[in-house]
Amino acid sequence: MFKNILIVGCGLIGSSILRASINKKISKNLFVFEKSKKNIREIKKINKKIIILKKLDIRGLEISKEISDIDLVILATPMSQYEKVIPHLNKYLSKKSLITDVGSTKENISRLKNNSLSKSLDWIMSHPISGSEVSGPKYGSKSLFINKWCIVFSDKNKIKQKKLVNFWKKIGSKVIIMDEKVHDKIFSITSHLPHLIAYNLIKTAQDFQKTQKKDVIKFSAGGLRDFSRIAASNEIMWRDIFFNNKKNIVSAIDLFIKNLKSFKKNIENLDDNTLRKKLVNSKKVRQQILNLKQDIAKPDFGRDQN
Amino acid sequence: MFKNILIVGCGLIGSSILRASINKKISKNLFVFEKSKKNIREIKKINKKIIILKKLDIRGLEISKEISDIDLVILATPMSQYEKVIPHLNKYLSKKSLITDVGSTKENISRLKNNSLSKSLDWIMSHPISGSEVSGPKYGSKSLFINKWCIVFSDKNKIKQKKLVNFWKKIGSKVIIMDEKVHDKIFSITSHLPHLIAYNLIKTAQDFQKTQKKDVIKFSAGGLRDFSRIAASNEIMWRDIFFNNKKNIVSAIDLFIKNLKSFKKNIENLDDNTLRKKLVNSKKVRQQILNLKQDIAKPDFGRDQN
Repeated sequence: MFKNILIVGCGLIGSSILRASINKKISKNLFVFEKSKKNIREIKKINKKIIILKKLDIRGLEISKEISDIDLVILATPMSQYEKVIPHLNKYLSKKSLITDVGSTKENISRLKNNSLSKSLDWIMSHPISGSEVSGPKYGSKSLFINKWCIVFSDKNKIKQKKLVNFWKKIGSKVIIMDEKVHDKIFSITSHLPHLIAYNLIKTAQDFQKTQKKDVIKFSAGGLRDFSRIAASNEIMWRDIFFNNKKNIVSAIDLFIKNLKSFKKNIENLDDNTLRKKLVNSKKVRQQILNLKQDIAKPDFGRDQN
Repeated sequence: MFKNILIVGCGLIGSSILRASINKKISKNLFVFEKSKKNIREIKKINKKIIILKKLDIRGLEISKEISDIDLVILATPMSQYEKVIPHLNKYLSKKSLITDVGSTKENISRLKNNSLSKSLDWIMSHPISGSEVSGPKYGSKSLFINKWCIVFSDKNKIKQKKLVNFWKKIGSKVIIMDEKVHDKIFSITSHLPHLIAYNLIKTAQDFQKTQKKDVIKFSAGGLRDFSRIAASNEIMWRDIFFNNKKNIVSAIDLFIKNLKSFKKNIENLDDNTLRKKLVNSKKVRQQILNLKQDIAKPDFGRDQN
């Protein structure tokens, strides 16, 4: 499908792409550029054939014949690193190459590539909707993308777009085409706000524990623990998302606070009718999510501590 | 341990106590009072020896010799039903009996029993910290309480308190003694606020979907789905909790909103330093929760859709 794939940044997502690509024999050679020595040690364990680049100077390598043949570059670093990578892409890639990324916000990436990428190169954005609270190649998995959505962004080069869609499908994703504006709005609600709220709830519990001197973490099984999972997500990745999708996230926060104040009023007024209607309506969403196979259809996520 | 246990209200929690009691052979006879016919059908499947009462008139039964021997009554109805049950307890129970409940808020129950329960009867409150988004006896489990906290509330009758503690331990709980004021404060943060926030997040997503006409549920795997589980919890139970612990919950909401507004400001100002500090701090709580065995120590709750 591809001869040479280069993965730039090889954490949870990068290493999962790597594993899935090896598993599906998608390319002849797999190149990885990764800064962390600890991560490199993990990546070496995956497969001996992986070629780890010491610098992002593709031409400087022994394998110099391959240079013009890097046909897919996947950026899987935190988004804040993309800017530093682009000059290398401009310098070393040929116009035959296809660039993609796995960033979680897209209007910013779209602006960045329009401003900084060489006009002769093609960068078609992707967003695989998969991830976890854990980071690093240690936790990567070849089946991370199976039956998960991957969003590919519409591009005028339909041949390359098709190739990219096929790549994601090959490693198990269900692909959908979207534009970046719609994407950033939808994910401000389905992903960015939930993460922010989870972080904020944990912060609130910490503040309470400090001021009230009461042990709250100990009793977190009553609900708090669910939020602590998401609030343990990688801070660099999430800082980048919050900053890059600022406008949509701020709107989402405002809508959330408006609703929360109304909820508070319902409680203060013991407004049984309104409150119950809200609770019953929320319940329906869980069933919709299960019907769409977006979560495991077992009570309590099927988790069992016994 | 007991000769006759009566469980009033036999949904998820009641039927789990029933199953665990049968499993541990805790009492000679097990009586159940349950209003829902559907639930009764489920309960009959559990064990043929369970005696289902047609009304809460213990004296009116065939098994009238047992009357004065109901030695443990467990209230497991929604809290809003307790008031209706008390006259029956006053009328039919002897002072040898021990009453407990499994309600999620305690200052209200404490007030209720002080005001309405016959002075000759002993009601020592319990709160097992276990539950699920699903309701009804169909989902009950004999191992629901294993290694979970159960809070027992301090009482002057230390003999009966000890008996109650032993009951919970026998069915697997780790027991801790607490007072109702501290309890209601702690659980406003570890349980009630998380549930309210989850309901409110789902409501916000629904509002967004309606006004923006964008499909958000479809992409809920990016975070939203975690909240949808909790927001599918029983509405009667949660209405009761929100109303009964109003004062603490309102304080918790206020603290939450204050923190959220500060988070929003950090995002608007691209305040990297403050924001990152908050994210890193939240991460620590997950590890504390895992160390305390309050959640399953697997990424993504160990759920796997593949």
